[in-house]
Parts: sequence; C-alpha cells; structure tokens
Amino acid sequence: MSDKGSVLVTGGAGFVGSHTTVELIQAGYSVVVIDSLINSRKESIARAEEITGTKIPAYYFDILEKEKLQQVFEKHRINSVIHFASLKAVGVSVHTPLIYYKNNLGITINLLEVMRENGVKKFIFSSSATVYGDPHYLPFDEKHPVGNCTNPYGKSKFFNEEILRDFSLANPDWKFILLRYFNPVGAHKSGRLGEDPMGIPNNLTPYIAQVAVGRLPYVRVLGNDYDTRDGTGVRDYLHVVDLAVGHIAALEKVEKMNGCMAINLGTGKNHSVLEMVAAFEKACGKKIPYKLEARRDGDLPTFYANPSLAESELGWKAIRGVDDMCADMWKFQQMNPNGYAEN
Amino acid sequence: MSDKGSVLVTGGAGFVGSHTTVELIQAGYSVVVIDSLINSRKESIARAEEITGTKIPAYYFDILEKEKLQQVFEKHRINSVIHFASLKAVGVSVHTPLIYYKNNLGITINLLEVMRENGVKKFIFSSSATVYGDPHYLPFDEKHPVGNCTNPYGKSKFFNEEILRDFSLANPDWKFILLRYFNPVGAHKSGRLGEDPMGIPNNLTPYIAQVAVGRLPYVRVLGNDYDTRDGTGVRDYLHVVDLAVGHIAALEKVEKMNGCMAINLGTGKNHSVLEMVAAFEKACGKKIPYKLEARRDGDLPTFYANPSLAESELGWKAIRGVDDMCADMWKFQQMNPNGYAEN
Repeated sequence: MSDKGSVLVTGGAGFVGSHTTVELIQAGYSVVVIDSLINSRKESIARAEEITGTKIPAYYFDILEKEKLQQVFEKHRINSVIHFASLKAVGVSVHTPLIYYKNNLGITINLLEVMRENGVKKFIFSSSATVYGDPHYLPFDEKHPVGNCTNPYGKSKFFNEEILRDFSLANPDWKFILLRYFNPVGAHKSGRLGEDPMGIPNNLTPYIAQVAVGRLPYVRVLGNDYDTRDGTGVRDYLHVVDLAVGHIAALEKVEKMNGCMAINLGTGKNHSVLEMVAAFEKACGKKIPYKLEARRDGDLPTFYANPSLAESELGWKAIRGVDDMCADMWKFQQMNPNGYAEN
Repeated sequence: MSDKGSVLVTGGAGFVGSHTTVELIQAGYSVVVIDSLINSRKESIARAEEITGTKIPAYYFDILEKEKLQQVFEKHRINSVIHFASLKAVGVSVHTPLIYYKNNLGITINLLEVMRENGVKKFIFSSSATVYGDPHYLPFDEKHPVGNCTNPYGKSKFFNEEILRDFSLANPDWKFILLRYFNPVGAHKSGRLGEDPMGIPNNLTPYIAQVAVGRLPYVRVLGNDYDTRDGTGVRDYLHVVDLAVGHIAALEKVEKMNGCMAINLGTGKNHSVLEMVAAFEKACGKKIPYKLEARRDGDLPTFYANPSLAESELGWKAIRGVDDMCADMWKFQQMNPNGYAEN
C-alpha cells in the first residue's frame, strides 16, 4: 500500500468505475470502493481483484446513508475521491425525477460534507457531455454553454457541476476536476470486465452486443431521419479503458492545481449508429439484424468532443479505436453471454 | 374551520410568510405553519394570531427533519402547500454554498415526498425574479430564459423550479404554481407585522427603515455608476400585502388547473435606490443620510416585471404604491424600533 492514502471510488462496481479501479491499482494506487449495487454486481469487484491480484476493500451501501460513509473514512485514510456513483437511466429519470434528484444531488452533498469533516480536498467528478444540451456548435469544447439539459438525469449532472463549482469558489484550497464523458464503450482486454446493464440496455453498444450473442433478436435503430450522413445518430464513442486512464491523469493533475476545472474526455472522432453496427459485425464476424424505428425523445442528432483540453491539461489522449472497442466488447460478451449473472 | 382542509405555509413566520398567513386566514382559509426560526421569530405568529383573532397551529423545526414533517401531515388534514421556507441571504450563500443547496433543495424534496405519501397535490412555490439572471430584455416576462444565476441562493431557486417542473411532467395530476417575486417591501397596515431581518439587513428598504429610526447611521448606496437614470440600481418594489394577496389568487388558480405554471408577481413599475430613499424621507418626514459606496458583486443595474400574466391568469394586480410601502414600513419601524426582539 502506498502511504499516500487511498482513492475512494464511489460506484466502483459499475462499468466505468470497475475499469477505473483496475487501472488505478495497476498504476500503483490503493483503492477503496463504495457501491450501492442498484445497477451493478459484486462480481465486477471480484473480477477486478482477479485481474489485479489485489484485495479491494469494498462497501456496499447507498451514500445517502451518511453514517456509513463516515465509517469508511474512519476506517481508511482517504486521499482523494473519484465520484462515479449515480443513477443514470435517462428515460427512467423522466418518470421518477424526484428519485434522481434526491439521489444524485444528495450523495454529492454527503460526500462533500464527509470529505470536509475528514480533511479530504481532492474530488474528481464523473460528469457527462449531456451538460452541454443542444449544440450551439460542434465539436463541444469546455467553453460551450452548459445547462440546457432536457431530462432530470442530465440536469442532475449539471446541478452537481454547479454545486461543486460554487463549493470550490468558497473553498479555494480544494481541487475539483469535472470530467465530461462522451460515449464510453468497450471492455477490458481480459474479457473479464465489461458493461453489464441490468435489464434491457439503454445504450446502443451493449444492445448490439446482446443481439450478436443471441440474447436479443435485433438492434432497434432509433431514428434514421436525422440530418447526419446516414440519417442515424452520431456520437463520440470512447474505449472505457481510455476513459479509465483519463481518471488517472486527472488524479495526477489535482495534486498540482487548485480550483475547479471541467475537461472533456472524448476521442474527437464520431460514428453513426449504422457505422457502429458495421464495426461490430466486423468484430464478431456475423450479420447483426436491425430495425429502423422512430426517434427517441430528447436524443440529439450529433455530438462529439473537442478533446484538446484533456491533452494540454492532463496529457491524455484516447488511443483505442472503434475496432478495438468492438473487439473487446465482443470478447466480453462471448465469455459472459449473461453478463455477470450466474450462468 | 373550513372542511376543505388546511393550507400548510412553510416559512410562515418569515416576512412574506407571515403576511400571507394573515391574508389567508382573513380570506377564510385554515392555516398550519412550519418555520425553522433560522431567520424569523415566533413573535410574528403571535401577532398574526392577534391580527386575525385566530389560533394558528405552528410547528418550529427544520423540514430537513422529514419525520417531523410527516407528523404534521398526520395531525392536520393538509389540502395544499405554500412553500416559502428557504435560506435567502445572497452573500452568505456564496460563502456557504453547501448549506444553501442542502437546505433549499432538500426541504423541497422532503415536502414533495411527504405530500405524495399523503395525497396532497397542490403546491405554490416561492420563487424569485433572480431566476432570470442577466436581462436579455426588460421588463422580464415569464418567457425570458432562466437559469443564468450568479449565486447559490439564486441557483437553488432555479434548481427547485426545475425539480418541480420535472416532477409535474411525471405527475400530471399535480398542480404547481411558481411565483417569481420581484422586491417585496412594506408592512402590515396595523404596524404589528413587518420585515425584521436578523443582524444587519441585506435588503435596501429595511436598511433605510433602520436608518430612519436611528438603529443604523446611514444608508449604504451600493453603486451609483450604473447605466440608470440616477446611476443607482432600479428595482420593482412590491407591497408585501399585495404579494400575500397574490398567493391567495394562486391558491384559487391551482384548484382549476393541472401542470406547472410560472408567474411573475411584480408591479411593472420601477424605482431607483435614491428614489426609494426620497420616498421614505417623505413618509417619515426626516432626512435619511446615505453614502455612495462601490457596487456589490452580482447586483444587476435594473430589473422589473411584466406583470400581465398574473393579471390574465390569476386576476391579480398590485394596487399599493411606493408611498404606501414606505408609510407602512415607517409605521412598523416606529412601533417596533427593535423589530420583534424584546425591547
């Protein structure tokens, strides 16, 4: 164990959280995980332990239970926090907004309070490109206006950014990096860690993977009449391991800065839905059936990152392409046709 | 007591809350008050009881204590909620943002949860013109963009509006009116109820009143180099009794609507700081000393309401002018030179 103390990873059993936990440990950090298991499984932590050969202290509770959070800080010397934990289903957030606001805002407030009580002042926040709302221009850079979000999930990310920014202004010795993710996909190259959404996937690529492996009959392409090169939505897909490595770069950066900085993590490239289907077909060597369906409310035609600030401030750049993403996803899906569930 | 059930007034011991409580009772409503007494005194409720000749059930706790809120709903049949309770010092919010977010968002969330558990679906929210941020045009109407607030207090009002709006979309049988106040001033004509801020007043008119009565030496005019007719800030001052009556109009409206509606409560008129000093001099018959000082961060040069939606939707219009406001404030200040504190 490093004597620098541990990195607390909230939501560490989730898709991005578990991959980041692995990269942190492999980079020499000690990690403590908290996860509610609302949308994740303990198995991902078992596998992160297996990949890293390291026992990972992990606590399974909801951070709305503040006393339990305090106990973790008493038990471990925490040096910094990477805060992934969040409810994240856009569609569900529209139907149950109060749960989203209560949870996603409440846990950030609890974290800040307990961090302050324990003198921990370094905070990396899992934000999202969704804070940009409708594009005034593309690609999105960090100067693009924020806050015009169309659903409670996105607004909860924006509100959290504002809370952290205001807290930073009032507490100038704290250090905050707000990482605005584009579309994380892919899996660990071992095939042991990947994206395992509960129920029917909300996101495109796990959906494609489950069609390829035979769990779902066809891909639902939601809208083919957008003003894009083939009519389907265009996104900036980012390999989850590149994204995980970006958090390590951010962790190095918070050691050397004060204040609050928002940084995009994306590739700057973009692919349509049909291009992703084709890339996955190439990776798995099968035809992926799909059906064209109506647009989904609130989806944007196109968005992708200007990733240059991450390169200049963090020295970070995505190095894995779409073929890597699909190959790694396919490997995970084949090795785990039912995800982390018992087979 | 009416068999329609009671109106729960949160923050009912505060300036606007206590005046609204009086008007509600005089209009035939039953009222139950909850107040944290963080920035108010029980004496205002005693005086509201004296003015109305009615015993007012009042509970003094912080709505962050959800169990106590539930107990009030068990004890009283609540029909609708007027939610005034809020931390409201702009400057303090900049220095302690976490307390502002935790309190102002948390109590709204607790209220919605307890209302839902008890089948109460009518909610009138005490919002503020501050949600409009920098004017794109003047006067502000309800279609003006919102959310560009410069301080945690203002943002907490905006975030609450968004939470209520999203909750309304998910629960279309609920009824919400968001009342965006301009600058409430004045006092009850009895001289028994008025504005009694704890400590040095943040707002102009109680400051003027305390100078007039000799508690403070001079009025600090914060900025005389704004692009306004005399260089000082221009606002839409609204008599607190007119504002209180606006809540009764809103309460009648929520009985007949669904969804969520934002409505300005202002006069549409506007006065500068120096004009308000002059109006108060006229009311009290004394010279009010003032000093010109630097601008305060985040203050806007000018804002005032387009109040036409309140007239068309609520049938409400402010009828009291600046001379009434100053005369009533002066009466309160003379009768209560130390506010509600023991003399």
